[in-house]
Amino acid sequence: MKFDFLGLIDLLGTVAFAISGVFAAMQKRLDAFGILVIAFITALGGGTLRDILIGDFPVRWMRNREAASIICLTTLAAIVFQNTIRNLQKTLLVFDSLGLGLFTVLGIRVGLSHGLDPVICITLGVITGCFGGVIRDIALNNIPLIFQQEIYATACIVGALVYFILIHIVNDPHIVDVSSILVICAIRLLAVRYKLTLPGIYTKAQ
Amino acid sequence: MKFDFLGLIDLLGTVAFAISGVFAAMQKRLDAFGILVIAFITALGGGTLRDILIGDFPVRWMRNREAASIICLTTLAAIVFQNTIRNLQKTLLVFDSLGLGLFTVLGIRVGLSHGLDPVICITLGVITGCFGGVIRDIALNNIPLIFQQEIYATACIVGALVYFILIHIVNDPHIVDVSSILVICAIRLLAVRYKLTLPGIYTKAQ
Amino acid sequence: MKFDFLGLIDLLGTVAFAISGVFAAMQKRLDAFGILVIAFITALGGGTLRDILIGDFPVRWMRNREAASIICLTTLAAIVFQNTIRNLQKTLLVFDSLGLGLFTVLGIRVGLSHGLDPVICITLGVITGCFGGVIRDIALNNIPLIFQQEIYATACIVGALVYFILIHIVNDPHIVDVSSILVICAIRLLAVRYKLTLPGIYTKAQ
Repeated sequence: MKFDFLGLIDLLGTVAFAISGVFAAMQKRLDAFGILVIAFITALGGGTLRDILIGDFPVRWMRNREAASIICLTTLAAIVFQNTIRNLQKTLLVFDSLGLGLFTVLGIRVGLSHGLDPVICITLGVITGCFGGVIRDIALNNIPLIFQQEIYATACIVGALVYFILIHIVNDPHIVDVSSILVICAIRLLAVRYKLTLPGIYTKAQ
Repeated sequence: MKFDFLGLIDLLGTVAFAISGVFAAMQKRLDAFGILVIAFITALGGGTLRDILIGDFPVRWMRNREAASIICLTTLAAIVFQNTIRNLQKTLLVFDSLGLGLFTVLGIRVGLSHGLDPVICITLGVITGCFGGVIRDIALNNIPLIFQQEIYATACIVGALVYFILIHIVNDPHIVDVSSILVICAIRLLAVRYKLTLPGIYTKAQ
Repeated sequence: MKFDFLGLIDLLGTVAFAISGVFAAMQKRLDAFGILVIAFITALGGGTLRDILIGDFPVRWMRNREAASIICLTTLAAIVFQNTIRNLQKTLLVFDSLGLGLFTVLGIRVGLSHGLDPVICITLGVITGCFGGVIRDIALNNIPLIFQQEIYATACIVGALVYFILIHIVNDPHIVDVSSILVICAIRLLAVRYKLTLPGIYTKAQ
C-alpha cells in the first residue's frame, strides 16, 4: 500500500469496502466484534481467496499490520459517525467502484505473474474484486447481492477484457492498469445511475 | 482431463455437477453471473478444497482453461436449453453418480500420493466428491442437502473402504479405481431408486 | 496432541468443541453424516483456517489420524448418550472455555513462529479460537453466534493482550501460555455466569 496513485485507490477502496461491510453487519444488528469481522471479510476476503487459490502465503494482509489497522480504524469511525457516513453514500460509491476496479486489476496481474492462462487471470480478477462481498453476504446469511445485480461482476469482466486488449496495444503497463480501473469504475457507476441490468434468462415462472 | 476412460468420466461428471449447480441457482432465481459462479463452485469446489487442504497450488482448475471453459459452455447450454435438459434428469443422475465416484477416488489417490493416513485419505475422498455440493448449498443459503440425505456421502465412504480393501488384493491400480467408482455409483443409484436412508438417530422430538 | 498438560487441554477442548457441533447440528435435525461434518468443522475449522492463511500444509489435522479419530468417537458417543451429555453442560462449558484459551494461544504462537506482527498474531489467535464456531454457524445457516455475544471473542482478544504483556515480563514461555489460557477461560466463564455483554452501539432502531 505505497502512497502512489494506485496506493491511494487501494486505501480508498479498502476503506469503502470495509464501510460497506460495517453497514451490512449493522443491518443484521451484530455486535462490535461481529461488525469488525464483517468489515475485515468484505475488504480482504477477495484478495485472501486469490492468494489461497494461487498459493501465495502468508496471505497478503498478514504480512504487515497496515491493512488490519486501517480496517479497525475505519470500523471504529463508521460506528461512531454512522449517521454522518450514511450521508456520504455517493462518495463511498465512487471509492467502492474505484476499489472494485483496482482489486480486479491486481487479481489479473497476480495471475499473469504466475504465468496463468488469460481466462484464469480474468477469473482471478473477478474473485479478487467481488468475492469479499460474496463471503460477507454468505456470513450474514444473505444470498450474495452480486448474484442478483448483474452489472457488478459484469463490469469486472468487461474491464478485464479491456485489460487484455490494451496490453497488446499500449506499451506502458501503468496506462493499462489505470484505463482498466476507470472502465470498471465507469461501468459500475453508470449501471447504478441508470439502474442497468442484463436481459433476464428465465423463460417461465418457477 | 485426458480423453481416456477416466478422462471421459471426469468430463461427464464435471458437466453433470455444473448442471446441478445451474438448476440449484435458478431455483433461487439468480442472474446469469450468479448461476455461472454456482456452477463453478459445484463442479470445482470439492477438488479446490482438497488442493487447498493438502497444499497443492495453484489449485488444479487454475492450471489451464479446460475446466473453466467446459463449465462456461455447460452453463450457457443449460440456461438456453433448460426445458430440454430438465427432461434428462435420469441421464444426469448417472453422470452425477459416476462423477461422485471418480472425484472420491481422485481425492483418495491425492492423499495416498502425499503419504497420508488411510483415514485421512478417505476424508479427502469424501471432501473431493461431496463438498462442491456443500459449498453450493451454503452459498445459496440452504442447509447442505447431503447433511440430510445420508446415502450420498455414505456411498463415498463405502466406496473408499472398497478401494482400500482392493489395493491389497488386486495388482492393477486401474481395476481398483474403476471398481471403486462403480461401487459408489451403484450405491448412489440404488439409494435414489429405492429411496434408501440410514436409520434415524433422534430419540425424541426436539 | 502429546499427553502433557497442554495436550490434555487440547484433547478436552477438541472434545468439547466437537460436542457443541453435534448439538448445533442436531438442533437442525441433520443426519449422522451431517452431524459428523459439523463436529469436524467446529473442532478443526479454526486451526484449519489458520494453517491455510499462514501456508502450513497439509493442514495440521491431516498429518495423522488422531484428531479425526477423536472427533468420530466423540460424535458417536454424543449421539448415543445425547440425554446424558445434555446434563453435563457446565462441565462442557469449562472444557470449551479451556479449549478456547488454548486454541487462541496456539494461533498466537504460530504467528510468532512465522515472524508476524503482533496485531496479526492476535488476529490469528482469535481466528484459531473462534472461527470453528463461525464456520459451523454459517454451514448451519445461522448468523454466527459470536457476532452477537460479544464476550466470546473479546475474551480471546484480552487474553492475547495479556500474552504479549507477559512475554516481556516472564521468562518461562510455559507460564505465559498457561496464564493467558486461564485469563481467557476465566473471562469467558464469568461472562456466561453473570451474563456480561459490552455496551450496545446502535444509536437508533434500524
